[in-house]
Amino acid sequence: MPLRLLITAGPTHEPIDDVRYIANRSSGRMGAAVASAAMAMGLPTTMILGPVGVDLPSAGRRIDVVTAAQMHAAVLREFPNHDLLIMAAAVADFSPVPVAGKLKRRESGAMTLELFPTADIVKDVVSHKRDDQRTVAFSLEKGGDLERAAQKMRYKKVDLMVYNSIATIDSPRIVPTLLWPDGRTLVLDDSSKGDFAGVLLEHATRLFDG
Amino acid sequence: MPLRLLITAGPTHEPIDDVRYIANRSSGRMGAAVASAAMAMGLPTTMILGPVGVDLPSAGRRIDVVTAAQMHAAVLREFPNHDLLIMAAAVADFSPVPVAGKLKRRESGAMTLELFPTADIVKDVVSHKRDDQRTVAFSLEKGGDLERAAQKMRYKKVDLMVYNSIATIDSPRIVPTLLWPDGRTLVLDDSSKGDFAGVLLEHATRLFDG
Repeated sequence: MPLRLLITAGPTHEPIDDVRYIANRSSGRMGAAVASAAMAMGLPTTMILGPVGVDLPSAGRRIDVVTAAQMHAAVLREFPNHDLLIMAAAVADFSPVPVAGKLKRRESGAMTLELFPTADIVKDVVSHKRDDQRTVAFSLEKGGDLERAAQKMRYKKVDLMVYNSIATIDSPRIVPTLLWPDGRTLVLDDSSKGDFAGVLLEHATRLFDG
Repeated sequence: MPLRLLITAGPTHEPIDDVRYIANRSSGRMGAAVASAAMAMGLPTTMILGPVGVDLPSAGRRIDVVTAAQMHAAVLREFPNHDLLIMAAAVADFSPVPVAGKLKRRESGAMTLELFPTADIVKDVVSHKRDDQRTVAFSLEKGGDLERAAQKMRYKKVDLMVYNSIATIDSPRIVPTLLWPDGRTLVLDDSSKGDFAGVLLEHATRLFDG
């Protein structure tokens, strides 16, 4: 049976009120490229997609979400029916308690917004996963902070971590480094997100070997 | 000489750090519809556009901006060379002081974000305008709060205010009410943003009569 892929992509939007929101910058391109590559390989693919305008392959199943909480619920609900999760979405880490209506502009003075950490989707999904499932996550860090990406890999217990720098955002290109829990590291050249999607899937499918 | 139009559209994005931002929900559709209608009427048109994926008429001049401060600067710089400003952008009212890099997620506890009011573009542009120029603004309010739209019209000293409800966001349709400083009010039917763009331009060009 071919591997069944679950891929998240895009940002999430966390409402401040009915008009305003907080988001991470994310074009959704990396996740869309992985989904395209997976479908080209004939792998059954489900995408969970935040609010982005990116073009997606029309084949495959698509679930649209807006907030981090909605993405969390969708991933935990869908993963049991899939073998491999590739978490390419840029999920908001912090979310305000939304206010109904529209906050009024004040003529002067600051406004204070209290933000609370969102649920850690990768950590939660890993804590529920079966031994025959694998997870891949992305770690977006300031240039060169591989150690933080490695820490996240260990803390979240993912099977493969993709480090990429903040320069990746809004770019058609990526300069990734792959990190495995056994300490292997693979520094890859600058490439298009489309080309990297194929390379990533190759390494991700090998996680099921042996 | 035909009227020269300056139209703003879309949201602005206010950076929290290199990754996160605050924005108003806005598709840019209303401003794009007004620009299309203006160009169809043969009016020279400049668009100042926040970060949106909306399709724009390729004719006309286009200036891309990201933040409220950039839109403020662009509008004040461009308006002297135009006759009519139609301010359809959903400019952020509040902006954080951005942090370089990426704020770290904390395992627990809230994060506090200090937000400061952005400059009021409409108010500032009106205070610099010539007697032969006119301004149109939009007021997005909770259903039915016409009084607040009227207050904004008087405070900002615009020549025509378009009230619309929060339901307008992300919608291809609008249920607008037009308000003039002399007290006239025109409640319009639910219509497509394209149809309303033509009606709005008709009323806006009449501001130059007499």
